[in-house]
Amino acid sequence: MRFPSPVSLNWIAELINAELLGNTSGMATGINEIHRVEDGDLVFVDHPKYYDKCLRSAASFIIINNRNVSIPEGKALLVVDHPFDAYTTIVNHFRPFIPATKSISDTAVIGEGTYIAPHSSVGHYVQIGKNCRIHPNVTILDHCIIGDNVVIQAGTVIGSDAFYYNTKKDRECWYKRMQSCGRVIIEDEVEIGAGCTIDRGVSHDTRIGKGTKIDNMVHIGHDTIVGRNCLFAAQVGIAGACTIEDGVTLWGQVGVNKTLTIGKNAVVFAQSGVPGDLEGGKIYWGSPTEEASIKKRELIWIKRIPEIWQKLTQGS
Amino acid sequence: MRFPSPVSLNWIAELINAELLGNTSGMATGINEIHRVEDGDLVFVDHPKYYDKCLRSAASFIIINNRNVSIPEGKALLVVDHPFDAYTTIVNHFRPFIPATKSISDTAVIGEGTYIAPHSSVGHYVQIGKNCRIHPNVTILDHCIIGDNVVIQAGTVIGSDAFYYNTKKDRECWYKRMQSCGRVIIEDEVEIGAGCTIDRGVSHDTRIGKGTKIDNMVHIGHDTIVGRNCLFAAQVGIAGACTIEDGVTLWGQVGVNKTLTIGKNAVVFAQSGVPGDLEGGKIYWGSPTEEASIKKRELIWIKRIPEIWQKLTQGS
Amino acid sequence: MRFPSPVSLNWIAELINAELLGNTSGMATGINEIHRVEDGDLVFVDHPKYYDKCLRSAASFIIINNRNVSIPEGKALLVVDHPFDAYTTIVNHFRPFIPATKSISDTAVIGEGTYIAPHSSVGHYVQIGKNCRIHPNVTILDHCIIGDNVVIQAGTVIGSDAFYYNTKKDRECWYKRMQSCGRVIIEDEVEIGAGCTIDRGVSHDTRIGKGTKIDNMVHIGHDTIVGRNCLFAAQVGIAGACTIEDGVTLWGQVGVNKTLTIGKNAVVFAQSGVPGDLEGGKIYWGSPTEEASIKKRELIWIKRIPEIWQKLTQGS
Repeated sequence: MRFPSPVSLNWIAELINAELLGNTSGMATGINEIHRVEDGDLVFVDHPKYYDKCLRSAASFIIINNRNVSIPEGKALLVVDHPFDAYTTIVNHFRPFIPATKSISDTAVIGEGTYIAPHSSVGHYVQIGKNCRIHPNVTILDHCIIGDNVVIQAGTVIGSDAFYYNTKKDRECWYKRMQSCGRVIIEDEVEIGAGCTIDRGVSHDTRIGKGTKIDNMVHIGHDTIVGRNCLFAAQVGIAGACTIEDGVTLWGQVGVNKTLTIGKNAVVFAQSGVPGDLEGGKIYWGSPTEEASIKKRELIWIKRIPEIWQKLTQGS
Repeated sequence: MRFPSPVSLNWIAELINAELLGNTSGMATGINEIHRVEDGDLVFVDHPKYYDKCLRSAASFIIINNRNVSIPEGKALLVVDHPFDAYTTIVNHFRPFIPATKSISDTAVIGEGTYIAPHSSVGHYVQIGKNCRIHPNVTILDHCIIGDNVVIQAGTVIGSDAFYYNTKKDRECWYKRMQSCGRVIIEDEVEIGAGCTIDRGVSHDTRIGKGTKIDNMVHIGHDTIVGRNCLFAAQVGIAGACTIEDGVTLWGQVGVNKTLTIGKNAVVFAQSGVPGDLEGGKIYWGSPTEEASIKKRELIWIKRIPEIWQKLTQGS
Repeated sequence: MRFPSPVSLNWIAELINAELLGNTSGMATGINEIHRVEDGDLVFVDHPKYYDKCLRSAASFIIINNRNVSIPEGKALLVVDHPFDAYTTIVNHFRPFIPATKSISDTAVIGEGTYIAPHSSVGHYVQIGKNCRIHPNVTILDHCIIGDNVVIQAGTVIGSDAFYYNTKKDRECWYKRMQSCGRVIIEDEVEIGAGCTIDRGVSHDTRIGKGTKIDNMVHIGHDTIVGRNCLFAAQVGIAGACTIEDGVTLWGQVGVNKTLTIGKNAVVFAQSGVPGDLEGGKIYWGSPTEEASIKKRELIWIKRIPEIWQKLTQGS
């Protein structure tokens, strides 16, 4: 999340009651979780296992629960006992929860020629472009951005919170939600079917590229970046923080694991499960996926096991 | 789609700015996409690969981008540069998009004893029979027809547009939606769970037969015809233009590929993927499906590979 | 379902026009279907195959279509021609369908600090605790109970009716819905994603334990009991009457068959299909599931079939 304008580290330190070490005169331009940090960002870390990763990341300012780490040149530490809670405090300050009181928020901007059906909700600071068609019972939550000529069919939810938790198994409730402050950005000419859910980024954006078409009941996780001219058939599920490049086709009920990349123009057959990166320009099948031609041959080999058995036991 | 009354070809030719060749005095009774054409229908074709199929189909009048094809006896050609756009023009003329302005359209007809919960939407020209129960947040879109004693649980969408695109990869946006003008017809005593989506036909009807019961989050694609007394468990997905005959049972998360037929009383076990036609009266399993007994035996054979290896390498 | 207060058997017998045999002075405290019966309950049975099971169950009073069975000590029979219809009559008497007329029923109780977004429905006799966040287009149906600090994201349905039918293939409509009179109980600190559906119990409760977190488009069937601190990723489907113990993790698109138990802290990998009970503390994979380590080895063995073939045919 970008801040509306740069904020002094001293002000942040006061907000979260932190000890400030290192480049104490810095200005923070935003806050992000570790997968999405950029120069000028705040980030948090609370487990020694990840100290190094965070200190070496692009983030300039690290909220941390240890004052005895060496501070990289030009960076600053904000030392607190509970970095996760400090993160939440900052997010809630800049993106406070504002209850919806009407169907279309007064702060939403709706383009010319756009139709929004009854029983749809458009949240605070939402922007919708021109000539869109938003069908009934659609929910577009705060801060999401929709381009021109976009179709969103009935019952779909844009901008639900990320399924992203801070996990500690030594407390009564193991999972604490990491407050989402990212957005969903839907580019021009995108069409989204009925009953879909597209989560906002935890701290960054989930994005659907121009001209991509999505069938019914497709789930797209937080921070996932979908390219242009992709085609996702019904009941596809894509986990968080994936990169789906341009022209990718996923057939029905395909499942995609988190934080992976599917290359340009790849095609994945129905019901496949994608466990890791897939190279572009190829056709995949299976759970876990392989190249479809390999998978097909494998199924033929499996059918030959009884013949192998017979050869082996009867010597014929 | 049937037209309200037959329309002269000359009038159509003028509407889409076409050159009319062959049986120029014909009257068109409707328009359909190629899988559903009937005598009296208009159809369109824009790729030489499909010229023949269209010219030989049941359609009487062919919107085409080539004047140099031989015209079958009694048929007519409507020659235009862009047949797909001409199709859209005709559909939009006969089924113009009419924004919804209230929860239940004034043109909807609702039978006696039917309950429609708050936050549900009933579109233009919808017909709903007697003693139905429509739960909250249901969306029933324009022109759909619902029989008597039908239950539709919360959040379900009836009549979403087909996921059906004209594809050309040499333009900026590869996929152009083929405008749906078909309907969904739900017969008496059907019950549909929560969070389902049933797409309307592209140009014809999607139909759910009498007494069929559908669990939550089931997706049924455009133009699919479901018989009587079928049972679909949760999260089943059926692609477009399928025929599911009477008494078919699909267990949870089954996926069904497009344009296939599943025969009477077939049973398909959970998570199976149906790639092609299935004969009725049998039990199926697997992705891709096989008869369940064969699939079970196959799993046993797979377990024996280590034993085969041992026999082979140790000669025992 | 518990009755508001105990009801005399004579009164019940009159309501359903039954002949009362055995302990005719009994008082019924509730009615349940056979999987959930307790002492004091009415139950029904209409097929000789299940007579014994019902007569020996914890139920005290059996609605049955046969007067010539021996009555266990202290129990009573209510003899009718159509036990299923008698069951429905009793359920409809104690839980009559009451149409919703507004977004939030006057009989609902909403705790302090709880936010309910526009376009959400809260049914009759619903209880919602403190500091909950109910997003737009959520449906919470009659009699459901929600704890404190619960989050329910947009488009989710709580308390849809069970997918549970009385089946007889010798009538025109094979399936008659068994009227649900159970509830959904959601404990404190539970978070439920967008587009989920959680069915009420047929006659008992569906329950989601404290601190459990559920991603988008998850389906949970009737009467299923989910423990504390479980984590269900997107598009998981759990059938009816399951027991999911504390700390269970189900990754995306997992399917779980009905009436089974998954033990404490079990982990099930994405797209797996769980056919029967799983012991706690282990990691599972596959459809049908096996321990993940076994499944992984199996995939390696399958890859070796061509090598086996070569060894066998070329003797090398």
